[in-house]
Formats: sequence, C-alpha cells, structure tokens
Amino acid sequence: MSSARTAGQAAPGTDAPGLVAALDIGGTKIAGGLVDPFGRLLHQVQRPTPAREDAGTVLGAVHRVLDELSAHPLWGGVRSLGIGSAGPVDTSAGTVSPVNIAAWRGFPIVAEAGAHPAVRGLPVVLGGDAVAMTAAEHRYGAARPYADALCLVVSTGVGAGLVLGGSVHHGRTGNAGHLGHISVDLDGDPCPCGSRGCLEILASGTAIAARAVRDGWRPTGTDTSASAVAEAARAGDPIALASFDRAARALAAGIAATATLVEIEAAVIGGGVARAGDVLFDPLRRHLHTYAALPFAAGLTVLPAHLGTDAGLVGAAALALDELSGREGAG
Amino acid sequence: MSSARTAGQAAPGTDAPGLVAALDIGGTKIAGGLVDPFGRLLHQVQRPTPAREDAGTVLGAVHRVLDELSAHPLWGGVRSLGIGSAGPVDTSAGTVSPVNIAAWRGFPIVAEAGAHPAVRGLPVVLGGDAVAMTAAEHRYGAARPYADALCLVVSTGVGAGLVLGGSVHHGRTGNAGHLGHISVDLDGDPCPCGSRGCLEILASGTAIAARAVRDGWRPTGTDTSASAVAEAARAGDPIALASFDRAARALAAGIAATATLVEIEAAVIGGGVARAGDVLFDPLRRHLHTYAALPFAAGLTVLPAHLGTDAGLVGAAALALDELSGREGAG
Repeated sequence: MSSARTAGQAAPGTDAPGLVAALDIGGTKIAGGLVDPFGRLLHQVQRPTPAREDAGTVLGAVHRVLDELSAHPLWGGVRSLGIGSAGPVDTSAGTVSPVNIAAWRGFPIVAEAGAHPAVRGLPVVLGGDAVAMTAAEHRYGAARPYADALCLVVSTGVGAGLVLGGSVHHGRTGNAGHLGHISVDLDGDPCPCGSRGCLEILASGTAIAARAVRDGWRPTGTDTSASAVAEAARAGDPIALASFDRAARALAAGIAATATLVEIEAAVIGGGVARAGDVLFDPLRRHLHTYAALPFAAGLTVLPAHLGTDAGLVGAAALALDELSGREGAG
Repeated sequence: MSSARTAGQAAPGTDAPGLVAALDIGGTKIAGGLVDPFGRLLHQVQRPTPAREDAGTVLGAVHRVLDELSAHPLWGGVRSLGIGSAGPVDTSAGTVSPVNIAAWRGFPIVAEAGAHPAVRGLPVVLGGDAVAMTAAEHRYGAARPYADALCLVVSTGVGAGLVLGGSVHHGRTGNAGHLGHISVDLDGDPCPCGSRGCLEILASGTAIAARAVRDGWRPTGTDTSASAVAEAARAGDPIALASFDRAARALAAGIAATATLVEIEAAVIGGGVARAGDVLFDPLRRHLHTYAALPFAAGLTVLPAHLGTDAGLVGAAALALDELSGREGAG
C-alpha cells in the first residue's frame, strides 16, 4: 500500500517552468515525487520495496509508484524523470545493482522506468543516492555557496558525492564519491567490500554503536543505536565520547584526503549520525587541523546538511535538472 | 652558466601552428624550452637555481633563462608561456612558494615572468610540477588513451595530478592531486607536513631506502639509495623486497582511494622509483586487488610513464596548450 502527500500551497502557476518527477529507490522503500525547479516537493507517494522478490516484482512496485504519481493533476507539467538509487549504479549503462535488492543485478532501470506509459518520451536521468543528495545540497542546500565541495551521508553506512568546479562530479559510471570505502588505515580490519581499514567500518553509525558497546558502554534502556551513544556522549560518558572521537578522526582523514586530492572548500555532513551535533562536529573539526595540513586544504569549512528526509527525492530531481541545464547550456 | 641544446631536425615549417615557451622551476635548476604542439622539445636552456639567494636573484636567473630562450630564431613563433613550478603554487593568485626556494613565498611568478620584455603580451599559464607532468602524460604520453587518470611521480617525494572527464583537474588553486599527503594510516607516524601516516613517508624513494637500512639491509658498495635497494630486490634480497612491498601497499591504498573517490581508468607512474620496474609494479598490482575492491574501481590499469627527463618542460608547455585550446573551445 502507498501513502500520498500534496503540498497544495506550493503549486506553481500555469506559466511556471516545468516540473520534475523523482524516484528514490532504496532497500526499504520506493518513493516518488513531483518537484518544482525551486526544489519544493509538491506531491509524494511511496511503497515498501519488495526487496526479497524477483526482479519483475520490484519493477512492478516502481511502476505502481509511477502510476500513482502520474495520476496527479500536476503530472502534465513534468519535463523529465530523475532517479536516485541505492548503489552500486552504472549510469553509463543505465543500470543499478542495489546491495539490498538481491534480484536487481545490472538491472536496466533507466529503460524499464522509461517504458512506463506516462514516462515514455521524457528524458530519464539516473544517479546513485549519495550523488543525488549531493546534487540537492549543491542546488538548494548547504553546499550552494561552494564550487568545490564534498557532501557526506553518515548513517548506517557512509556515502558521499563531490561537487567540482561548480558541477556534481559523477565519474564515468556515476560512482564517484564512495568515501566510505577509501582505506584510512592500510593495515586495518577487513571490510565487507574486500579492502581493509575502510572509513565506513570506523565512522558509520553502526561502527560507532558497536565500538561503544565493545568498549563497555551500556545504555540506560535497551537502545544501543548510534543516537543513544550520542545522547550518552552529550551527557559526558567517556566511552561514548571516545567512540565518536574515533569516528570523527576517521572522517577527518577521509575529508582531508578528498581536500588534498581534488581541492574542496567545504564538507557538508548529513545523515542520522550528523544529528549527533557537537559530539561529532567538534572532534571532527579538531582532527581536520591535523589531517588537512597543507595550506590549500587547511581552510576547509565543515557544516551540517540543510535538506532533511526529502533529500532523496529532491536530489533525484536535482540530477534531472542538472542534466537539463547542462543540455541547454551546451545547445 | 647555462647549457643549451637544439633539436634542429624537429623544427616546424613556417606554416606550423605556434610554439610554446616553457619554464620548469625547481630547487636545483631552472630550465627553459621551446616546444612545438606535438610535444617536441626543439630547444632547451638551463641554469642552476640560486635557491639560497634573495627573491630578486632567483627571479634574475629566470629572466636570464628567458633572455637566452628568446634569443633563439624560433622565438618569433611563440604564442604563450607555460610555467611548471615546484609547489605549493597558487594558480588563482599566480604565485609560487617552492619548499626549496626559501625567498619565494607567495612570489608572483606569473606577473614577474610576464614582465620580461620578450614575454610581454603573451598569455602566461602556471601549474605545479606534478600537474604539468600530468598534462604532458595526458597530451603526449601514457595517459593519452584515458579520460580519467592519475599520474604519479615517485622519487624523493610523491607527487601526482589528475585527469578527470578528459581534462587535467587543477583544483581551485592548482594544487589538486597532492596524493603524497593523503593519510593512508590515520594512526601512523607524523609527517613533516603536519599530518600523520601520509603516503609519501611510506612510499617515496627516501622512505624505501630508509626502511631497508633500518631493517638491516646493507649495500654491497656505499650506495644506499632507493635504486640500490631496487637492485638488491631484483637479486632477491628479502629486506629490499619487503621495503618495496610496503611502498607498493601504501601506493595501492592511495591509488585505490583516488579511484574510489573520483573514478579513474588508469594510474601512470613515473619518477626514479618507477624505474625499479617489476619489484614495484608487481606488488603494486597485487595490493590494488585488495584496496580497489568496489567493482567500478577494480578494473584500474597501472602503467609506467612515457615521458622521461623532458617531462617538466613538455608538461609546462602542455599546461599552456591546454589553456589555449580551452579558450578556443570556449570562444
């Protein structure tokens, strides 16, 4: 079953520029939205992802979302479809292989979503979810003032995307910005990805919680999540503080590596772990003084993301708008 | 005193496209060259760098190089001046602060070289030496087939530059690609730059030689350089092999981090340490299987640089040619 929400107040006038249809495909839900060029989410629908079913059933859920979305009176103003998907993606092939949707391996989502009757004829633009979030923060959020920025999502994993020279840097297959899987500890623990000492296994919410518990932290209730560790850290618990400090050190090494490699002016941090606030941001800024040592990397600004739970859909729309404005710029 | 060399055979015809004047500024020498659009170095002069003298004396040496260069009959065909300099540089300000030229701190080399009577009126383009080398490998060398590549110089230090989407990625101040100062070991030894566990202190020629000596390797003669360690490694010395293996592991972590962050198809490796050949490249390719684990990063090609000792001047010229073709493309 699906839920729908419409922000009637924000509907554009008849001579407003076109709308963008957005799909946000993840392991737990498939969301659809209608987004105006100012990044306002005008209408939204969603369904649970049948993540353990066959490929056709998952596609069926996507088509149901598109059915409902295209039944909305504003659909006539839609000029393109943006898709943000859990990765890995291959934007050059138009395919996705989301880790948590087992039946989709190299699944041709661009062609299959584009074959929906209401979508046929519209440009369809695909990106990974972290790259979509980066497009949203760059177009409408905290990264807006910067031509060169890194946008991170720190939650159960660590995802990221890059803005370089004023544009989102997708990389050849749309996977640029996989900061969670750079090694910041070359002799470190093995990561499920196959590498060692990856940033994600040190700095994700999962890692923060597991390390605190391993080191002897006990919650007052039964909640052993990273947000419970954050609450304990804010209350001064030394083990909780140490776990956040370790995550912050790893994030600082990764952000500094990015600044040193490509030059960035700002790092924008969103996701559930960023809501920990000062217990994350304070040690992160301190450790950045160590790791971002070269003068051109040292001035880096760190700031929280602006966009909240709508970032997935607004990001998918931003991918499509970036592509359209790129075409208009080139034409 | 200066030395000069002219490759008379390669002189272009009168209707050939313009030449580029090139300056390669380092801590030991200042070289000047005339380069044709095919990357051929037609004429070359050089002087020792008066690295311990005042700023004006160092500039004087640059102007003497330009005096000699502009006295050559081919100078009339010069359309621009490219400058590759030891870093850090600030291409947005047109200044350089080479570590080994103490009196030059924020020195306005673009304005000062541009004020030379023979240069006045020509476009002057500045880049760091590793970025210049990257421009040369991209335009004429091993990186030519690739739209996305990392080019490294592994010698006494570790420098690098990036090609992204078919163009050299300079970064806002021209310092992108400082791979030698990303941390691959967040709890590692302090680096002179202020950070910890930098790639350079694990993988440079200096590091390879120091580690071998520390671990008990003794040369047959008195040569304890990285190339002597390479010779011992080729003869099967286990300590020498282990030192190269450690450097290769660190390089693999850094190259994989780059591939994971921005997507690259190839890593091109030059500099004295690359001449070690298989004792470096074999373990490097093996360790890349570990660290470049995500599918989009795993296919990376590793290959030796094509350009040799002329790479500095040819690279400086390539910077200027890139800038000119960028302008023509935009105009």
